[in-house]
Amino acid sequence: MRNPLADKIVEIKPSGIRKFFDIVSEMKDAISLGVGEPDFDTPWHIRDEGIYSLEKGKTFYTSNSGLKELRMEICNYLQRKQGISYDWSHEVLVTVGGSEAIDIGLRAMINPGEEVLIPQPSYVSYEPCAILAGAVPVIINLKEENEFRLTARELEEAITEKTKVLILPFPNNPTGAIMEKEDLEAIAEVILKHDIFVMSDEIYGELTYKGEHVSIASLPGMQERTILINGFSKAYAMTGWRLGYACGPREIIEQMTKIHQFAIMCAPTTSQYAAVDALKNGDGDIAEMRKAYNQRRRYLLHAFQEMGLTCFEPYGAFYVFPCIKEFGMTSEEFASRFLEEEKVAAVPGTAFGDCGEGYLRISYAYSLEKLKVAMGRLAHFVARLRAEQASKNN
Amino acid sequence: MRNPLADKIVEIKPSGIRKFFDIVSEMKDAISLGVGEPDFDTPWHIRDEGIYSLEKGKTFYTSNSGLKELRMEICNYLQRKQGISYDWSHEVLVTVGGSEAIDIGLRAMINPGEEVLIPQPSYVSYEPCAILAGAVPVIINLKEENEFRLTARELEEAITEKTKVLILPFPNNPTGAIMEKEDLEAIAEVILKHDIFVMSDEIYGELTYKGEHVSIASLPGMQERTILINGFSKAYAMTGWRLGYACGPREIIEQMTKIHQFAIMCAPTTSQYAAVDALKNGDGDIAEMRKAYNQRRRYLLHAFQEMGLTCFEPYGAFYVFPCIKEFGMTSEEFASRFLEEEKVAAVPGTAFGDCGEGYLRISYAYSLEKLKVAMGRLAHFVARLRAEQASKNN
Repeated sequence: MRNPLADKIVEIKPSGIRKFFDIVSEMKDAISLGVGEPDFDTPWHIRDEGIYSLEKGKTFYTSNSGLKELRMEICNYLQRKQGISYDWSHEVLVTVGGSEAIDIGLRAMINPGEEVLIPQPSYVSYEPCAILAGAVPVIINLKEENEFRLTARELEEAITEKTKVLILPFPNNPTGAIMEKEDLEAIAEVILKHDIFVMSDEIYGELTYKGEHVSIASLPGMQERTILINGFSKAYAMTGWRLGYACGPREIIEQMTKIHQFAIMCAPTTSQYAAVDALKNGDGDIAEMRKAYNQRRRYLLHAFQEMGLTCFEPYGAFYVFPCIKEFGMTSEEFASRFLEEEKVAAVPGTAFGDCGEGYLRISYAYSLEKLKVAMGRLAHFVARLRAEQASKNN
Repeated sequence: MRNPLADKIVEIKPSGIRKFFDIVSEMKDAISLGVGEPDFDTPWHIRDEGIYSLEKGKTFYTSNSGLKELRMEICNYLQRKQGISYDWSHEVLVTVGGSEAIDIGLRAMINPGEEVLIPQPSYVSYEPCAILAGAVPVIINLKEENEFRLTARELEEAITEKTKVLILPFPNNPTGAIMEKEDLEAIAEVILKHDIFVMSDEIYGELTYKGEHVSIASLPGMQERTILINGFSKAYAMTGWRLGYACGPREIIEQMTKIHQFAIMCAPTTSQYAAVDALKNGDGDIAEMRKAYNQRRRYLLHAFQEMGLTCFEPYGAFYVFPCIKEFGMTSEEFASRFLEEEKVAAVPGTAFGDCGEGYLRISYAYSLEKLKVAMGRLAHFVARLRAEQASKNN
């Protein structure tokens, strides 16, 4: 039998995140700090709205673009929070999570061989989706000395004649880095100068612990060249509902909608009804969860400090990204030994790009109690590693 | 500003189905016979299971492949109904409807320039998804004289050195055609001889009104070269839940899962819990809905006969595909005038491929009462057209 597979897909490695969880799920007393998913249930009033829609028999397709009411509420939200005006009828597409928006956004924009700039460390999907869309992914290695922000200079150096799209993944998974207004202004200048487009993945936008999240689409001249991607998974603890959206220039959204129509049809109906309620009545839930995350974030940074572990202060998402270079082993080795010896799973920084080497992603979408136990184990582990090193050096 | 779009996507036409519905939704007293969606609400016990999962706070991601319990039930179902054994842990992927399975199946299998055989008339997604995957779509024009079945000869004639995959869309949307076991055996022989693969879209499998649906994957030597696609939308009236699945050889499912992981993450969680119940307790619902569809199907064929409209007898899905060639106008003209003059929307056969010219797709996913009113209007319209023709000929 001949080979059934496409060469392009075979070459793509599966995500490096999952590996540790298959182990941890079989290990007694193990703690996972690995998953990129809120530990909160979806707030009750949002679930209740989903339940109500099911009771009412709202089990049919919605329009391809999504419920009109949902698209209107998305526009209200972006107007209210970011000061950006979108036309609900032509500039919004409701998708199956932010993930689908990334995938079809790239498919709508990329001609074979065009370059997509991907700052790393970053979410595992960008590079595979770019490759699948026929793009040449060009990696920009972000640096801890810049708090893992993207600088105008790094961007400028990566741009070539073939550059089409910059993916802008802030607040960042896995580093927790954010981009503040002045950082974005410097980036926008380069974008405009070189006439390229931006795919701004703002799925963690609501989880910002220093001022308010700013979207690059709100800067002068940027809305017409930005696909703004957001969704309900992180802000409203709605991961399993699979609901996100893309906003952008009509001509791009139109083409994305075409792909969405053929490949997906519409986002899940129950989730869409629930999401309307999330946008209307969910601000309080966000504030509460953000407060809890922030408390945990501060606790972790404090714990790292106490055990002498270097970690820049991240102001976004629900991840910290401590440096483990002092131990002279790879992130993969560190994470493996930490799991085996202390039964705590964290993700090696390299799962998010080669430049994540020397770092560990620790998620704080876990209760403070769990984090405290895990930090006890980490302190123990770190102390042992240092003792090992000391005895080796003697 | 430079052109933000990919050339490939711009060239693809949007679906021709929707156009009429935008008009019909604004027209008073209009009847739509156009939508490819059951008119039944999802059965209550299935909705109830979804509601229960929401009450229990099951709002998190499932594994990328889908809930273990759901994959096991899918395997039970296929064993029970088709006598095919799949390994739930490696050969099943739960997707966002059958649509996603088609899209990622082609993306997993197609190298640029390979040919995908698409029998038409057929569902509007195959050709665009093939093009987006980098394939060259090769259309096989099915014929009414064969009851719109695919013959071994037609298949053989379409195969070249570059043929990789045959899409097998039966029971068929829009014609209602089915392929019986002996039809499939003849096809399988050609498939095996030429060493190609099959993507068998069996989303309407449960809606068969002549014997039991047979899957090509159940024939000797075919399981290892077939992606079987099915889902919950049509059989269980669960369109809005967006849930389907693909079963196939491990190596292909693995690659599809990789794309799914990056582009979608997982299918909606609530829908997955509800679907477990559908498979366990939904046989009675299917039987009831099938009975209602069959009654409508027979009514329509009878009505066509009475008004002297040619229509082969379709044994699957919920569509009839009457021939309107006698009126000397295109399908598009016929459908437009029918809508304007009689306020009934049906889809021109050409929305499903050029060879649909001269036919009309009428969906019977509408109540008998509605269908009766619509057939009254059709009889009226047909009589007027015949009178027009007669006066022209005098």
